[in-house]
Amino acid sequence: MSTKIIAIGREFGSGGHTIGMELAKSLGIGFYDEALIGKIAQESGYAEDFIRALNEQEAPGKYRFAYSLVGRDSKGKSMEDYVWEAECRVIQNLAETESFVIVGRCSDYLLGDREDTLTVFIHADYDFRCKRIVERYGETGEKPLKRIKDKDRRRGAHYSYFTGQTWGDKDNFDLCLNSGKLGVEKCVNILRHIVEVENA
Amino acid sequence: MSTKIIAIGREFGSGGHTIGMELAKSLGIGFYDEALIGKIAQESGYAEDFIRALNEQEAPGKYRFAYSLVGRDSKGKSMEDYVWEAECRVIQNLAETESFVIVGRCSDYLLGDREDTLTVFIHADYDFRCKRIVERYGETGEKPLKRIKDKDRRRGAHYSYFTGQTWGDKDNFDLCLNSGKLGVEKCVNILRHIVEVENA
Repeated sequence: MSTKIIAIGREFGSGGHTIGMELAKSLGIGFYDEALIGKIAQESGYAEDFIRALNEQEAPGKYRFAYSLVGRDSKGKSMEDYVWEAECRVIQNLAETESFVIVGRCSDYLLGDREDTLTVFIHADYDFRCKRIVERYGETGEKPLKRIKDKDRRRGAHYSYFTGQTWGDKDNFDLCLNSGKLGVEKCVNILRHIVEVENA
Repeated sequence: MSTKIIAIGREFGSGGHTIGMELAKSLGIGFYDEALIGKIAQESGYAEDFIRALNEQEAPGKYRFAYSLVGRDSKGKSMEDYVWEAECRVIQNLAETESFVIVGRCSDYLLGDREDTLTVFIHADYDFRCKRIVERYGETGEKPLKRIKDKDRRRGAHYSYFTGQTWGDKDNFDLCLNSGKLGVEKCVNILRHIVEVENA
């Protein structure tokens, strides 16, 4: 079966978001990242700002003990659980209806069993990523390395909490690309080749 | 700089050896695996059979404590150290003179800093690998899963002992391909595309 969906996980600063965006543009298909929040808000009934804030806070895994005692309804579910369930439905429904590139949102886990989905993880060494986040997002009061480690830790905790898998484990992906070694443009071209030629 | 060398690490039963061989054939360049033993024997002065036996035994890491006390010469070196040093010289000298695909032999570590080298790790899930080793090498008294785990453990211990790195860590490679998901033929084609097109 040919590839219809490309689900990308990525380390912060690796260029994975740009790779996904450029890939979608060159394939002429949809691109989902933050743009999904509107759909998830609609599906879950929670406000977009609330969902955005949930995504940006510490992952629930860190407070699992507290979460297990408070903030749960009569079904034992937290707000995070409801947002997660809405997110799963939105992403899985999209996969039934259109071709797209999706970045983050545990999409490799949610869609990886589909034969029409290529799962990809983009990673790079710290030097490459530190340089890239300063170029793209500018300096902040915090050192680039600390910003990267914080962001990766949050992503990893969120991913592990909801999927039960280790974030960035190569075994969960069809392929892993080292953007620090290959470069962002080459990663886009390799993925486009796989979708257009190898899976045609 | 264009890619001249493809250094492949692989899990046992993943098809990494076949991928390397097919890739070399389709690129019309040399292929090194066991074939290197003759050169290493010549370089080190040890017999081929001895080197083959060394490679197949438990990696020295398991007996590091014992190795640290016995079997060392006045320079504090074991036979494994001399064979390793000869192997490094052979592989690095080859890289100066020709274009090739090499499988195993810590070649990603030895050649990964070269700009003309693409480093690749091939992996697959246990189901795929169990099926493949039975098809290719037949049944033995041992269960396929045990054969795979034993072989991977030896490769991993050998690699870690001599390189100080974790075997199969995606961070040490330009790309990792899941042959169980992508299939052996597609892995060959993806790599050929990268060498012929992306690095041209």
